[in-house]
Amino acid sequence: MLFNFSSSTKIRVRYGETDQMGYCYYGNYAQYFEVGRVEALREVGLSYKEMENKGIMLPVSEYNVKYLSPAYYDNELIITTKISSIKGCRLFFEYEIFNIDNKKIANASTTLVFVSKSTMKPVSPPEDFIKIMNNYEIK
Amino acid sequence: MLFNFSSSTKIRVRYGETDQMGYCYYGNYAQYFEVGRVEALREVGLSYKEMENKGIMLPVSEYNVKYLSPAYYDNELIITTKISSIKGCRLFFEYEIFNIDNKKIANASTTLVFVSKSTMKPVSPPEDFIKIMNNYEIK
Amino acid sequence: MLFNFSSSTKIRVRYGETDQMGYCYYGNYAQYFEVGRVEALREVGLSYKEMENKGIMLPVSEYNVKYLSPAYYDNELIITTKISSIKGCRLFFEYEIFNIDNKKIANASTTLVFVSKSTMKPVSPPEDFIKIMNNYEIK
Amino acid sequence: MLFNFSSSTKIRVRYGETDQMGYCYYGNYAQYFEVGRVEALREVGLSYKEMENKGIMLPVSEYNVKYLSPAYYDNELIITTKISSIKGCRLFFEYEIFNIDNKKIANASTTLVFVSKSTMKPVSPPEDFIKIMNNYEIK
Repeated sequence: MLFNFSSSTKIRVRYGETDQMGYCYYGNYAQYFEVGRVEALREVGLSYKEMENKGIMLPVSEYNVKYLSPAYYDNELIITTKISSIKGCRLFFEYEIFNIDNKKIANASTTLVFVSKSTMKPVSPPEDFIKIMNNYEIK
Repeated sequence: MLFNFSSSTKIRVRYGETDQMGYCYYGNYAQYFEVGRVEALREVGLSYKEMENKGIMLPVSEYNVKYLSPAYYDNELIITTKISSIKGCRLFFEYEIFNIDNKKIANASTTLVFVSKSTMKPVSPPEDFIKIMNNYEIK
Repeated sequence: MLFNFSSSTKIRVRYGETDQMGYCYYGNYAQYFEVGRVEALREVGLSYKEMENKGIMLPVSEYNVKYLSPAYYDNELIITTKISSIKGCRLFFEYEIFNIDNKKIANASTTLVFVSKSTMKPVSPPEDFIKIMNNYEIK
Repeated sequence: MLFNFSSSTKIRVRYGETDQMGYCYYGNYAQYFEVGRVEALREVGLSYKEMENKGIMLPVSEYNVKYLSPAYYDNELIITTKISSIKGCRLFFEYEIFNIDNKKIANASTTLVFVSKSTMKPVSPPEDFIKIMNNYEIK
């Protein structure tokens, strides 16, 4: 299933997220993308928190990121998150980060896996997840 | 119960732990003290991990720290951790951080609470915890 | 100088800020308070970023926090930050964190020191800082 | 230039690095790989800290990671870091993480760029860097 849905979230670089280069530390972007995907899911009507409460977790199995330009302290950043597809028990996201001048400073992709909390094994996406995402399916 | 036990652990400041001032970010010391107390407990023969597996958690209820001098990237730091006392369901630690020149750069204290994972309520310290700590009691 | 100024900021607990207890990790609150004070300064018309660009840094020299109740993943938190006073080269803040049910879950205080980037020594607060804060002085 | 050099470092997963899934949060691996490459450089006789003091920084421009199996709290992990090659102003590293049972739990690669602190532009690798790395060149 391929989807056509993307959403945008704002984030401001915290002081503690900078490093001594004066850049936002490369490791902190992972949290930004996590915020991006949680907000994207919330926008389509899916709560990641609820899904976990129902026993399905979504750990990340793959993460690729290109840092095109540094982000600096106190910068407001726009994270656009695309829910791109589901293949079996895997969910794919794509991301772009823009700064306030609308310059793209990073792009990334992640693969997440639906995992049962009780068995710790990959499982099919929950039915209500599929049902909602059907609305955004590219046929 | 007052105790007479302290131990030392080494830590090296990671790049991602610095901020744009070039200092180790003030928020990262909390992790260093956590490492200090886990290693202190390990040294007396207590595994925090096992305690959690048996259903007892130790969240922090109070944390006080004085930053006397900055820590910098790649600095090797020595954290000395004192298990100072137990009062009811609360466990008290005291910490000092020294740099490689043996200069004290921070001191801190934390209060932790024994909490049952099932009830989420404060509980008495586990018996095996008390038993081991008896060996270090100041009478 | 004692001040009468406080402001509020919202924050949402990120997944990466939780720990395996399911709580927001105690070390992450330091970033929340930093966000609180940056936004408080911004509201009175002071940019911490600009002050640093002009050669004055504000490292934290003391930090005290009480965790009254856990914060959980995806919780929206309100951080109220009070710029409380200046004594010599030191600036004092007080904080409270409330959850969405208006329950206070933490309170804290920090001491910051005005430090010159070039000399790395404590200095008096910049004149424009004092000028703006005069508007909030309790006489 | 292709190199034949790899080194190993140990890391222990900190409590604050776990998330509420009980896994080491996917964003924290970036710090582990950073520790891996700093230690790899130290082993060949290169200090990243000194290089920065001499005016050359090494920001990350690309980062790819596969999470094969979770890492848990208190796990001792072995990070093997391979300095793989230099192409122009770019330096390439490859990483593997193993747990105590010698199971591979992650692999990753990063691209870093030699950047002048004064001009903020990419530059050729410093001569002493090349000189040392010559010892490990695959011809």
